[in-house]
Amino acid sequence: MAAFELDNRLRGDSELVVTLGLCQLRLMDDRRWPWLILVPQRPSVEELFELKPLDQALLTFEANLAAEALKTVTQATKINVGALGNIVRQLHVHVIARRENDPNWPGPVWGFGTRETYTADDRAALIDAVRQAI
Amino acid sequence: MAAFELDNRLRGDSELVVTLGLCQLRLMDDRRWPWLILVPQRPSVEELFELKPLDQALLTFEANLAAEALKTVTQATKINVGALGNIVRQLHVHVIARRENDPNWPGPVWGFGTRETYTADDRAALIDAVRQAI
Repeated sequence: MAAFELDNRLRGDSELVVTLGLCQLRLMDDRRWPWLILVPQRPSVEELFELKPLDQALLTFEANLAAEALKTVTQATKINVGALGNIVRQLHVHVIARRENDPNWPGPVWGFGTRETYTADDRAALIDAVRQAI
Repeated sequence: MAAFELDNRLRGDSELVVTLGLCQLRLMDDRRWPWLILVPQRPSVEELFELKPLDQALLTFEANLAAEALKTVTQATKINVGALGNIVRQLHVHVIARRENDPNWPGPVWGFGTRETYTADDRAALIDAVRQAI
């Protein structure tokens, strides 16, 4: 079986927060909205239902852990969770903190406008806060 | 504890396919893309991580069951799964069949354009096909 390799686009758009039991938890470098992604470290999986049952349960646990931590850190109005994969096919789950005054509320973040990167200090501070909350 | 009551907007926009162990599985009445929603029959839950652990596992199982059935029925390019809740706060999970030539590929379906309803025959046929595949 092929080894897991992180998709190049995901790697370029995000930074590692922590490696969990199944997933890499990563921060998208987009300061418009605090945005985590979870990437199960399994090769050749595109759909959630292609994961083995135990991995499905682990992913649910890890995504909910990440979502709760992000809500605590950001005090968001609503957490948005999604697995789309229309562009990057490697299975990944988005966990995004939304507020009423963010740039596309209440619409979705995907495909909206252009990514705006953090300063290095702001990115490091948010990564640290998420790590503490996990 | 309050009893579960389906949100009025979800009720108006969709039709029941089948009741599973935890969720109502419903078909959104939008023929632009085959679109299921799962609504856990629990009162006062807005975020996935607010569900009890057993319910989280059940929801994962039922959402993946629905996603695999929808992929079988539609032969979709990609299944999109999401729990947003920015507008309707009652927890619900979207499962949508996407194709390269659909009206907003590869962008998301949420907030895009205007719903186009099925004919009664087409809606009944799709509901029947999903029931058979579940």
